Amino acid sequence: MAGTIKDIAKHTGLSLGTISKFINGGRVREANRDKIERAIKELDFHVNEIARGLKTSKSKTIGIIIPSMENFFCTSLISRVEKHLSKHGYSGIICDYQEDPQMEKEKLVFLINKMVDGIIIVPSGDTQKEIQQVLDRGIPVVTVDRILPDIACDSVVVDNFKISGEAVEYFVGQDHRRIAIICGPRNISTAEERLNGYLAVHEKFRLTVDPDLIQFGDYYMQSGYELCRRLLDLPEPPTAIFATNYDITLGVISALNERNIRIPEQLSLIGFDNLNLSKVIKPALSLVVQPMDQLADATTKLMLERLEGTLQGIPQLVKFEAELVIKDSVISPLHK
Amino acid sequence: MAGTIKDIAKHTGLSLGTISKFINGGRVREANRDKIERAIKELDFHVNEIARGLKTSKSKTIGIIIPSMENFFCTSLISRVEKHLSKHGYSGIICDYQEDPQMEKEKLVFLINKMVDGIIIVPSGDTQKEIQQVLDRGIPVVTVDRILPDIACDSVVVDNFKISGEAVEYFVGQDHRRIAIICGPRNISTAEERLNGYLAVHEKFRLTVDPDLIQFGDYYMQSGYELCRRLLDLPEPPTAIFATNYDITLGVISALNERNIRIPEQLSLIGFDNLNLSKVIKPALSLVVQPMDQLADATTKLMLERLEGTLQGIPQLVKFEAELVIKDSVISPLHK
Repeated sequence: MAGTIKDIAKHTGLSLGTISKFINGGRVREANRDKIERAIKELDFHVNEIARGLKTSKSKTIGIIIPSMENFFCTSLISRVEKHLSKHGYSGIICDYQEDPQMEKEKLVFLINKMVDGIIIVPSGDTQKEIQQVLDRGIPVVTVDRILPDIACDSVVVDNFKISGEAVEYFVGQDHRRIAIICGPRNISTAEERLNGYLAVHEKFRLTVDPDLIQFGDYYMQSGYELCRRLLDLPEPPTAIFATNYDITLGVISALNERNIRIPEQLSLIGFDNLNLSKVIKPALSLVVQPMDQLADATTKLMLERLEGTLQGIPQLVKFEAELVIKDSVISPLHK
Repeated sequence: MAGTIKDIAKHTGLSLGTISKFINGGRVREANRDKIERAIKELDFHVNEIARGLKTSKSKTIGIIIPSMENFFCTSLISRVEKHLSKHGYSGIICDYQEDPQMEKEKLVFLINKMVDGIIIVPSGDTQKEIQQVLDRGIPVVTVDRILPDIACDSVVVDNFKISGEAVEYFVGQDHRRIAIICGPRNISTAEERLNGYLAVHEKFRLTVDPDLIQFGDYYMQSGYELCRRLLDLPEPPTAIFATNYDITLGVISALNERNIRIPEQLSLIGFDNLNLSKVIKPALSLVVQPMDQLADATTKLMLERLEGTLQGIPQLVKFEAELVIKDSVISPLHK
């Protein structure tokens, strides 16, 4: 049912101006806000349909929120998203929240006040309530790389469970039994799925899961470095490491270099993202490569379709396959 | 002399609203715009002083414009700038112009319309007129990494001439005589100064400058890759290469790896930026390292001082020293 702003005015007794202000992301008094939200629910309206009726609400600007400007995956991704957006006449406002959910909340409010038409976000996972509030205002949100389990919004991801399984199974096929995984933060869906892929392969081949071989870090190089050192210091170190993000991969390589541990003769490694890395590292690194262009393209497409109203209703989950690119960083430990 | 908005209203006969709109970056009719600009000149007012008087003009938002989200130096820099800004209660709106001066112009207009208090920019060099117009509106601009020769605004840079000379002189001290340099685009001050440092050392030691050894690219990995291949294909290839940006450095390494040319036994290399790179590349790379924290700190400080009015008048040029970090990627060609 497509409602109009007038219906809400009638129902609440508030002025059209106040309701318009609310829908456009402006500040209204708490009491009025409650009234409007209640009216929208009671009338079973979809705010975005109402918002679409308000020509003034179009800023042709999309807010883009990422955890860090120093995260290679994120900057590559949004560089591509921005190119697509600008082809369609939209400007991007990019914000990073420095891996801090509190700052992420502030950036959401900031962008709403800047009257963005929509928000594309790589979320921390700790701001589901606030993202729901954005959606409740009729502002479309697309999450990329990560899914928010409690929220009904569009998402674009790769099949992390599957590709992680492929990488770990490749190790198993090369006779590795002590396979370590360095995961991202536990609250991020992507990190969890990569771990689940690892566990599923262990179950499939009835391999013992050694909790010492499962490390959780953040997505920084320093974290990959420290956790790799911890793995190397185990009484029985792994014969293979799966580094599940680009910066973690760099950290692992730097730790191995520091100890003069040769890849793959002394330790096998599969890294993540950035195919270019395999061209500058020797030996050429085997990597999980994500389809950056497809991710960016799908993200932009979903956002534009929501804004133009050609896509309505049920949130879409678009999932792409990542690719395991085998180079020279894995050999069988039996060939040592 | 500190003028007020009322003086301009009196002088032009326009309403306070129109003048306030102009000063805040809003659109006013061409004719009114001309009147206001003339009045400001005739009254010898500084728009920023007027703007400071208008409380409503404070958005506590700084626009940040960089050439590309895939440029490592830029994303590292603005990540730090943003951290400083947020400590002082400012939000950053980040835009990239995809190395396209036309888009750079659009982003300047976009940010003005978004009512930013100031703009921090890594400029292309082709938008001096437009940046002057921003300054004319009383919006402070700080350029980082690059100087705009025709514009009187604050800038924060490193001494590129000096550090480039140091790198080239290091090669000379290691008996290199055929030293190649891969520069950035000619219109960028930073690229020009790095080349000038190279030339000055050649003059100092009375070395012949072979134009074939001076290559100009853009700041992308692909460019470093292609230009390195071109250098290797010369009848008499260089014995040493100075790669003057991070992405160019990666491209050079990938070209050398592709041809199985060993660093430093077959070719010596000095790269640029990202100390982390020297931890993951073997042999550890000798690098020019820029003081990222100092650059970011000084940029933010200049901007805040302009906004708060504690710094007035003549533009400041803040120059830092970069550092040549010697590792294992350079040896004498005589020791081959």
